[in-house]
Amino acid sequence: MHPPLGEFELIQRFFKTKAQAILSKDPQSITLGVGDDCALLNPQAGEEIAITSDMLVEGRHFFINTNPVWLGRKALAVNLSDLAAMGAKPIGFTLAIALPRIDLNWLEAFSDGLLGLAQEHSCALIGGDTTSGPLNICITAFGSIPYGKALKRSGACADDDVWVSGSVGDARLALAALRQELDLSSTDLESIQARLHQPIPRIDLGLALRNIASAALDISDGLLGDLKHILKQSCVDAEIFLDRLPKSATLQKQSETIQNQFAASGGDDYEICFTASPTQRDSIHTISQILNLPITLIGKIKTMQSSEPQMRLLNQHGHALNAIETSKLLKSFDHFA
Amino acid sequence: MHPPLGEFELIQRFFKTKAQAILSKDPQSITLGVGDDCALLNPQAGEEIAITSDMLVEGRHFFINTNPVWLGRKALAVNLSDLAAMGAKPIGFTLAIALPRIDLNWLEAFSDGLLGLAQEHSCALIGGDTTSGPLNICITAFGSIPYGKALKRSGACADDDVWVSGSVGDARLALAALRQELDLSSTDLESIQARLHQPIPRIDLGLALRNIASAALDISDGLLGDLKHILKQSCVDAEIFLDRLPKSATLQKQSETIQNQFAASGGDDYEICFTASPTQRDSIHTISQILNLPITLIGKIKTMQSSEPQMRLLNQHGHALNAIETSKLLKSFDHFA
Repeated sequence: MHPPLGEFELIQRFFKTKAQAILSKDPQSITLGVGDDCALLNPQAGEEIAITSDMLVEGRHFFINTNPVWLGRKALAVNLSDLAAMGAKPIGFTLAIALPRIDLNWLEAFSDGLLGLAQEHSCALIGGDTTSGPLNICITAFGSIPYGKALKRSGACADDDVWVSGSVGDARLALAALRQELDLSSTDLESIQARLHQPIPRIDLGLALRNIASAALDISDGLLGDLKHILKQSCVDAEIFLDRLPKSATLQKQSETIQNQFAASGGDDYEICFTASPTQRDSIHTISQILNLPITLIGKIKTMQSSEPQMRLLNQHGHALNAIETSKLLKSFDHFA
Repeated sequence: MHPPLGEFELIQRFFKTKAQAILSKDPQSITLGVGDDCALLNPQAGEEIAITSDMLVEGRHFFINTNPVWLGRKALAVNLSDLAAMGAKPIGFTLAIALPRIDLNWLEAFSDGLLGLAQEHSCALIGGDTTSGPLNICITAFGSIPYGKALKRSGACADDDVWVSGSVGDARLALAALRQELDLSSTDLESIQARLHQPIPRIDLGLALRNIASAALDISDGLLGDLKHILKQSCVDAEIFLDRLPKSATLQKQSETIQNQFAASGGDDYEICFTASPTQRDSIHTISQILNLPITLIGKIKTMQSSEPQMRLLNQHGHALNAIETSKLLKSFDHFA
């Protein structure tokens, strides 16, 4: 049965009313929220606005029948992760969503998940669009950052350390288990599947790194493939110590091949990979303690040796992997591959 | 055959390189464009940022096999139309797009249309996302506006005039012809189908109305249904003279019922409907002459008489339509109806 609920009532019921509670938290930066032709941001003097947009498609980015609370959280989390990687403080976001049908329970759960995470980061829903169509969620998020303080991909220098937050590879391991590519005990799956379904945007880390990191990005398509963007934009090489990639106890139960593959190129990690001068090591350890978040030194930035940036991957014996092994670990997730 | 082109090459080839030419036109307001975790806007002192987001779904918002040049233009145009309705000057936009496959000719044409219109308005492509999935185009656009000058929906006052730009109903007439709901000669269809496929965002009009209009919005779901948002948010009633709705010569060939229905509630018009004090009539006529764009007085704002805002529709004899006739003309387009 089709409920008697139109587009405007839907927005009002599931998004606008709930969103207003968050909006009121920071009235200075948002002059106008949901309900007009545009929302209005009122940037503070000396601040830049960081903008990022991510589109999630059913069957590609998430399983059909994914828990809508998780999905709501994740749709915003992947955008907040981009803000974190720039060192930006979340302000607000727009939500454009195509829905195959109006399912009141689904919408209630989705908006609870979405706006729950928004509330945690005082990030207001300020506008968007609702339409019918194959399930597709497109969020564009906005953050503020003092002028010139953004953590770009282009700032890495020779001799900088390469760091990564948290651990990598668990989201890929959970995906492999759910796709039955490998066997995982239900306890093991339980211990890691939040990493796939409910990534935590590292907002506090991004803010703490504003005067410390020389370059940063968030890991969505695989650690090493993403790191290559820093190398390209900074025109540098890198040396990575494979055995130092931070892995969960659950991932460490897998074969060495799988450990390396998933940690190096698994994707969907939403951790921050960044570079910083070795003089910043003490500060980084302090940040790690304060945030109660592991931050691991995984490599070094080197002067570029040829016309293309190179990454040398070293195994536990300090030996460089050959070209074929390396290219396998550098492969980023590609939606069209 | 699947061309050997990945996600990053696709963005580089069809969007980033072409977009850079536009970006360089206004280097002050955009500090960082496509290619990092976020784009960076650098708002000027005393300016607010207007933000709007629209999602276009194949088969819902446009026909399968729509000319991709038109589609690229329209996807941006509907967002620029929202900026226009706020009185905002375009700065830039993000593009998130789900593509069922990589079709080089389609992408070339789509990005030509999209970036052609972007160029005309010096509106830079600053970021976005590309993924596989059922064709879905989500654009979020940004504009600037002096603090406090935005044309909101909430500012209409009793005794204000109600105006509309251009003419209304042609997009709906073209759609009816293409859907074979009615017969239209190929000459007639030719004369109006640009109104459906290539709407013109009324940016210059929005800028000119900044100190003149009391409230404004763009007409996407039907003139009168959209006007109701102004009445609701301004807590006023309105009286509309149906015979004054501006219609093209082609629409005027249709029956009076169709003329009224399509002009009043057809949708996809992307004209600006606004209210202004009668003291502004001379200024509005001047703007109309300078922009070479008809602007027609179609009604009056009235003090609200009950708890809900009412719209009284008057026919050519000055008689009010009854409730059933009125509700038919007030029906907005609803994606879930």
